[in-house]
This record gives sequence, C-alpha cells and structure tokens, in this order.
Amino acid sequence: MKRIAILGSTGSIGNSTLSICESYPERFSVATMAAGSNIDSAFAQCLRWKPKVISVAAESHAEALRARLTSAGLETIEVVHGAPGTVRVATHPEVDFVVSAIVGVAGLEATYEAVKAGKSIGLANKECLVAAGELITAEARRQGKPLLPIDSEHNAVHQCMRGGRMDEVSTVWLTASGGPFLHTPKADFENITVEQALNHPTWKMGRRITIDSATLMNKGFEVIEACRLFNIPPAQVKVIVHPQSTIHSLVEFVDGSILAQLSVTDMRLPILYALTYPDRIESDLKFNVLDLKRLDFAAPDLDKFPCLRLAYEAAEAGGTKSIALNAADEVAVAAFLEGQIGFSDIHFTIKTVLDETSTKHPESIGKVLLCDAQARQLAKEVIVRKGTRSVTKVLAH
Amino acid sequence: MKRIAILGSTGSIGNSTLSICESYPERFSVATMAAGSNIDSAFAQCLRWKPKVISVAAESHAEALRARLTSAGLETIEVVHGAPGTVRVATHPEVDFVVSAIVGVAGLEATYEAVKAGKSIGLANKECLVAAGELITAEARRQGKPLLPIDSEHNAVHQCMRGGRMDEVSTVWLTASGGPFLHTPKADFENITVEQALNHPTWKMGRRITIDSATLMNKGFEVIEACRLFNIPPAQVKVIVHPQSTIHSLVEFVDGSILAQLSVTDMRLPILYALTYPDRIESDLKFNVLDLKRLDFAAPDLDKFPCLRLAYEAAEAGGTKSIALNAADEVAVAAFLEGQIGFSDIHFTIKTVLDETSTKHPESIGKVLLCDAQARQLAKEVIVRKGTRSVTKVLAH
Repeated sequence: MKRIAILGSTGSIGNSTLSICESYPERFSVATMAAGSNIDSAFAQCLRWKPKVISVAAESHAEALRARLTSAGLETIEVVHGAPGTVRVATHPEVDFVVSAIVGVAGLEATYEAVKAGKSIGLANKECLVAAGELITAEARRQGKPLLPIDSEHNAVHQCMRGGRMDEVSTVWLTASGGPFLHTPKADFENITVEQALNHPTWKMGRRITIDSATLMNKGFEVIEACRLFNIPPAQVKVIVHPQSTIHSLVEFVDGSILAQLSVTDMRLPILYALTYPDRIESDLKFNVLDLKRLDFAAPDLDKFPCLRLAYEAAEAGGTKSIALNAADEVAVAAFLEGQIGFSDIHFTIKTVLDETSTKHPESIGKVLLCDAQARQLAKEVIVRKGTRSVTKVLAH
Repeated sequence: MKRIAILGSTGSIGNSTLSICESYPERFSVATMAAGSNIDSAFAQCLRWKPKVISVAAESHAEALRARLTSAGLETIEVVHGAPGTVRVATHPEVDFVVSAIVGVAGLEATYEAVKAGKSIGLANKECLVAAGELITAEARRQGKPLLPIDSEHNAVHQCMRGGRMDEVSTVWLTASGGPFLHTPKADFENITVEQALNHPTWKMGRRITIDSATLMNKGFEVIEACRLFNIPPAQVKVIVHPQSTIHSLVEFVDGSILAQLSVTDMRLPILYALTYPDRIESDLKFNVLDLKRLDFAAPDLDKFPCLRLAYEAAEAGGTKSIALNAADEVAVAAFLEGQIGFSDIHFTIKTVLDETSTKHPESIGKVLLCDAQARQLAKEVIVRKGTRSVTKVLAH
C-alpha cells in the first residue's frame, strides 16, 4: 500500500489523483492532503478519504473545517494551515509519495521539504522546476529518490528515456498543440481577445495555463522543466508543433533512433505512471491505435510566439532569470485576463522584466521566493508604465 | 572489440553490416563470413576484411576462391563450404556475435547451432522465427543470450519494450506501409502484373520480400516472428497500415501508454542497435523530427490482403503450419514472378497447402527442414493443378 500526500487536493490534478486512488483502493491510500480555501471541498474530501492530516489556507479556514469535522465525528483528523501546514502534510512520516500539485510558488517550500525528507515525488507544480529546478533536482539526486513528472510531455519523455541511458539521449522533443492561434496571422495577434485565447483546441485546463498555451509560454516553461528534470542543456530540448496532441513527446538517441509516447489526453495516466513507477498496472485509460488516422507536425514559429524564445534565453541563463520568467508571466497573464493589457503585451511585459533581472543563482527556497516577489512587483510596474504609455499614445492621436 | 560472424555477407544485410563495421573499426571486427556462390564478391570481401574463415555454397566455389586467395597471398584464410561450412562460420570460437542474414531455410541450422554455442545473435533471417521460432527462442532462453531482431519492425518493438516489463505489454502494433496496392480496388487484384507488384513505395528490397509486402504476407510473417521473439500470443500482435513507414512499430502497455519508434528507413540502424545493445552509439543515421510533417494510419483490409489472415491462423497453430506458410509462399511468389500464376493465386496456393498441412510441432531443425521440403513439393503440385484448372477453364470458354 503506497501512502500518498496530495498537495493541492481540491484542484484538477488533486481530483485526478483521488480518482486514481478510488480505482485502486488496494494499492493507494490518501495519508495527508493540502487543500486551499474551499472548505466545502476539503470537508467532502475528509469525509471520503479520512486523511491523518489536512492543511488549508488560513487559520480561519482551519477553524471552520475543524468545526465541521467535529460535527461529523471526524475530530481525529488533524487540521493545520498555511505554509507550515503544507510542509507538515508533505513531510508526514506516514507518507511514501507526495503528489505536488499546488499551483504557483506556494507549492515550492513543501515540495522541497518533502524531497529533503526522502519522499518520492510526483511533480505537477511547474514552479518547482522552473523557479527552483536547480535546488530541487540537486536535493533529489542527493536523496537518490525519483522526481516523476506528472504532466503529459515530461511524463512521455520519462517513458521514452527508458529506451536508453541518459548519456545516450541526443534531443528531447516536446510536442506542442500550437494553441488556438497556430494558424492566426501574426498581424492579427494585437487584436486577440481573452475569449479567443481561452479557447484551447485539445486540453481543458485552468485559465493561466490556457493563456500560456496560447502564447506557447507554457511550452517554454516545459523546455526549462525538461532541462532541470533531465539535466540537459536547452540546446538539446526542442519543440515541435503537433496539433492533435496524440504524441506527448519524443526522445532522440545518439544512434538516430527516436522513441515517442502516445496515449489518451487524460492526466490520470501520467499520475498513474508516477504512482506505480517503475511498474505499470492495468488501467482503462486506453487509446485505440486504429484511431490514430492522421498526425501532423510543424516547426514552431518563434516570430509569432516570441515567448518561447524568451524561455530559451531564461533556460540558458537559469537562476533568477527563470524565476522572473514565471513570475512576470503570471502577472502579465492575469493583467491580460483582466483586460488591462493586450495579448502581445504579455511578451512585452515579460521581456522587459527579464531585461531588468540579473543573472544570479539563488541558494535557498527563501531566495527563490524573494526573487519571485521582486519580479512580480517589477512586472506590475511595467504594466502600469505600459498602460500609461498606451494612454499617452491614445491621447496623442 | 566485438568479433562478428556474418551469415550472408554478400547480401543486402551483409553489406549493411560491413558498412557498419567500416564506420566503427575500433568496435567491430569481422571474424568469419558465409557468402553464397558469388565468388567475385566473396573474394573482394576477403581482401578487405581478411576473415579467419569464409564459407561458400559448394565445393567448386570453395576451390575457385581458395585459388584466388592463394594468388593474393591470403592462403591463411580458411575456405569451407556448404551447410557444415556455414555452421563452422557461425560457431567459430573467435566469434562473439552472429549476424544471421542468409535468406531462406539455408540459414536455419547454422543460426540454431550458433545459439547453442552461446553466441549473441542478430536475426535478419525470417525463417529462424517463422519456421523454427519455437526451437530457436527456447534454446536462446536456455543460453540466456539475446536474439536481437535486425529488421525495422521488430527492432522498433524491441526498443519500445524497454519502456516496461514483458508482462506489462498488452499489444504489439506492427506498422505496414500497405505496399503498392493499398489503394487498388479489390476487383483489380486479379490483373496485378509482376512489374506493378515489384514497385514498393518506401523500401528497396529483394524480389520475394517485395512481393510479400504487396500481399501483406510479409507483415503476416512479422506477426509470427513477433509472437515467437517476444513470446506473446497472436491476439496481442496487431497490424496497422502506416504508408510513410516512419514509425517502425509501437508497443502498448497495460496502463494505456504506447511507445513508438521512429527513424530513417535504413537497415544499418537496426544492425547498429543489435551490435551495440544494450548500449547505443553515435551514428549519422539521423531522422529530422522537423521533417515529420504528416503521418497517416489505417486498419489493414483483410479482404484485400487475405494472406495476412492466413498468417494469423498459422501463428495460432504454430509448428508445421507456419513452416508450410513460409515454404508455400516462397514457391507461390516464385511462380508469380515467373508468370506461372496470377497475383491472387499466391493466396490460393498457400491456403491450399495450409489446409493440407497437419498441426505438428517439429522437435528438431532436421524435422523443420523436412516439413519445409514437403510443403514446397505440395505447393508446386497445387500450382500445377491450378494451372491445369485454369487451362481447362480457358479451354471451356
């Protein structure tokens, strides 16, 4: 029985993980969980899963949840909160495997502490590799424990890499659906609306990641994640557009052989893979090969999707540059979603922040969080400045 | 330094193997070789590779070659001939790895003896698995030595299988180009000419295998080979048409993940893979992923290509049925190439022979050869009978 901690239990990956635990009750138990501020969901999950510990966002949430658990006769479930609570959930002695799926830098510290505590990790949190990849992968290597990627691309790469040794890999090819604007002429990018950008062709995801897919910045983050996770330079990580999203990624070996991984587009599959690695177990997540029909591929257009180029630059520089890339992108995407800036301004904002960010290598998670906060602040200033300039421009006409 | 025996050195796989040896002189040496009756080629290969032993077809060939080697000051090269000569080449104590690439049943005995002698084997000879698969794979398992497939499909399967354990494989998907008649209506199959059938869209190969590709019988043989090589039942080996022949095969695992192997269509790559396994080494046999463009897939049409169905039946029955399948096909294809029978008569001939073949499991290579000879004789009789019937039919009009 593998005892699991789920960081981000009420989110999409959290729910998919619980669905896997539901399907294999003889293999997986939910030991601890970290929810957010949705106490209704947290309470329902406690009723169903009876974890030993649950962490919620703030003290007020903890009090509310504790009261409801007591009424339900579940007062033995320990309720904790905040960052220390998440760390407690992630490092609990009765946890074997941590699914790290809290969105944003909030998941960083707990994941790092889980790695330090010698837990096996299933990584769905982007920031762990983009912002703190050097620190976390170094610690995992020290612990000799796997960091198993829970996203379709890196999970595919992980699977394909089993076809050879790490030093036999020549190139990792990440596939990109191309997003909703694959065929949109560059001239029309200025006028892309929030609604258009949220309309992703193949995956249903959260709002930020959907916009990041539309700018290809998400693929850029994945380039950085691949570099950190597999310890390879950015020149060996390439992107190929594949609109059907059937092949989730490819690995090219030095002899010229290329392995590709295909499957349904369902996050439960990479979660199951991570939870059972190095074994595989029977699932109903089947893709019918006879339904393949037609697969298309094309080179990505870096002129139309300059965010991808920024990501390569940040991947090369590493350290604070990739922290700033992620932080500035999050702020810029939020501003776009709120109608404060246009679609093309996302790139402008991030590029300006990167230009003003030094190349340093933060030596602790605390420093990572500090750099992240500074980059966010800077991004907000850039957006205000840009807004002012736009207003000036409009007024000048 | 890996010391190699090449059975079939003057053929296509033999020459590709020598080309690999040429590219990696520090890794591979040619210890022994078995040529056929082309003494010019055998002599040229002796000059270049100076093997310890070379075997040729008949005593007369051996004498001719010996004389030329003596004139060239190479009288230390031992020249042997016939079946015992090939066995000597395959089992020579200074051989580490045997490339089994003699076409037809002639390669059977020597390959089996090489396996018994504990050599690692690179298998390019179809008959070793189709006709004698049970015997040879059982012996290889006893010896604990690998049988590495040297053909694009099974080599691809071998690579993909590294992504999991054998008992985690649910289905092997062999890709088929579909041959030149993929889009030909069934009604036109009666009138297919030899020239049309020899015009294969993606691979340049020998005449028999090209016709076998046109009937999909070649894919049928590969189904049997996969069953024997990977010890899986026919129901777990499926065929998918993929006209570009870029994906060489796929392996589906029980969790629903599918791995596929892609590469250039160049036999040197599977040869290199087999010679270096479990390592991979740098080669210039590169496929550019950005050139993928478009891949198509479709289910095979068993009504148009009934030979494939025959192969599944033979795979299921095993033993003498698969021996007869191969023998009858070889005779029928030869008769087609000589204009004795029509394209659709290939299937009729094989089916008739299979119907008249009992289900037995031959317990020795000698018995395999006997069954093979009987099936050939029967196939010839069927062709004569059929010819007689056709003449009768024509005369009746």
